[in-house]
Amino acid sequence: MQQLVVIKIGGNIIDDPAKLPGFLKDFATIEGYKILVHGGGKVATEMGKQLNIEPAYVNGRRITDAATLQVVTMVYGGLINKNIVAALQARGCNAIGLTGADGNIMPAHKRPVKEVDYGFVGDVDSSNVNATVIQQLLQAGLTPVLAPLTHDGAGTMLNTNADTIAQEIAKGMANLMQVKLVYCFEKNGVLSNPDDDDSAIGNIQADNFQQLIDSNVVSGGMIPKLENAFAAINAGVDKVVIGHADELHSLIEGTAGTTIS
Amino acid sequence: MQQLVVIKIGGNIIDDPAKLPGFLKDFATIEGYKILVHGGGKVATEMGKQLNIEPAYVNGRRITDAATLQVVTMVYGGLINKNIVAALQARGCNAIGLTGADGNIMPAHKRPVKEVDYGFVGDVDSSNVNATVIQQLLQAGLTPVLAPLTHDGAGTMLNTNADTIAQEIAKGMANLMQVKLVYCFEKNGVLSNPDDDDSAIGNIQADNFQQLIDSNVVSGGMIPKLENAFAAINAGVDKVVIGHADELHSLIEGTAGTTIS
Repeated sequence: MQQLVVIKIGGNIIDDPAKLPGFLKDFATIEGYKILVHGGGKVATEMGKQLNIEPAYVNGRRITDAATLQVVTMVYGGLINKNIVAALQARGCNAIGLTGADGNIMPAHKRPVKEVDYGFVGDVDSSNVNATVIQQLLQAGLTPVLAPLTHDGAGTMLNTNADTIAQEIAKGMANLMQVKLVYCFEKNGVLSNPDDDDSAIGNIQADNFQQLIDSNVVSGGMIPKLENAFAAINAGVDKVVIGHADELHSLIEGTAGTTIS
Repeated sequence: MQQLVVIKIGGNIIDDPAKLPGFLKDFATIEGYKILVHGGGKVATEMGKQLNIEPAYVNGRRITDAATLQVVTMVYGGLINKNIVAALQARGCNAIGLTGADGNIMPAHKRPVKEVDYGFVGDVDSSNVNATVIQQLLQAGLTPVLAPLTHDGAGTMLNTNADTIAQEIAKGMANLMQVKLVYCFEKNGVLSNPDDDDSAIGNIQADNFQQLIDSNVVSGGMIPKLENAFAAINAGVDKVVIGHADELHSLIEGTAGTTIS
């Protein structure tokens, strides 16, 4: 089975002009099939402010109203995505920037309204990911760079969490390829001691995950992240790695970060 | 030889919410291989104003400074392009939105500084168009939707005239396919009487073009447009058609508009 690495970077890298070029240089040199998923960063928020668009909240939760949707479509799909593509092209990586609407690679639906109407936010079902189109792009020598946007199939773009995009693409591709999903952030992995960046746990399996929760080693926002990682594994993704963006190649090789399998 | 239709629409359609959906509906139903090239419209100018970016001029000519480049990258590559893609997807057309940087389909170079430094404006050499990548996308069942942006291969996006994008793509593809290039605008074609919209000249060939100029039937901005059309024909494009966006299918069939051959 052909191998594929799906790598997600968040705002902490995108927003940092000292970090992004180095990361992209590392990314460009990864051999074999690869996909980059990028988050939004602060640029969209700043752009919204400059355009006098008040951030919209319902019950304390940020929502995507029509004006915000325009801003994220511009900033994520245009400004951030195309500048990353141009930077990768300059590094010899034949990048192609896409949203979920392009090639219909990731159809989604507007999140159902329960307690909160999140507005133009897309939820994805990985069974709808058009893995064949993505495989054709990869086989044509192209490296997809995915913005955190999807569409509803009825003409409307939707704002979608970048972690979700990465996870769903990885799951959707798992039928066709052996997929490794790498989440890059600003820490060395899942830390056993949050104050010690050298305390990354090397491996987490299903059988020691509950134990790590019970002993409070893993807590807060890391729990849903790891639950999502296990959901990806259960859906056929080979490995999920979480670690520092500075160590991209080591994360892929499994010699740094936390590997979930 | 496989046939390809390259269709260019400008701001007068993009900016008009009464016209764009009808045009995209017509475009979606074109059979066979097709590419849509869209211009910028007023949205970028309005967005620049809202962001307090003063339009930059040198010697009376609009130039693309760094701030303007950010705006056009956002608006052309994100807002306009992705909304067109989503609208086409809703019509069953498997659109994929691209700039010249994506898949390196259209490498360009910053326009050389002579009397005016136009800033981040890209000039394209059609011999650099990556026709093979575009052909692979078409053969994968995808319909490229091109924004008026290119890149310099060194990491910088470049603002590029949409007429130029359309022409260079058509010329670049002419080695692989039989290409028809259709410019849609708000008139019925090249008019023999500018005050009579029913006076479209059906056909212009190289041998009557000079005559039309000499007799002042063709003048002003239409002359360079037609010169570009002949340049495209000389570079292997089969036909160039200029006509009204409302008559897309008739333009393709050659039963409306002005055909240059």
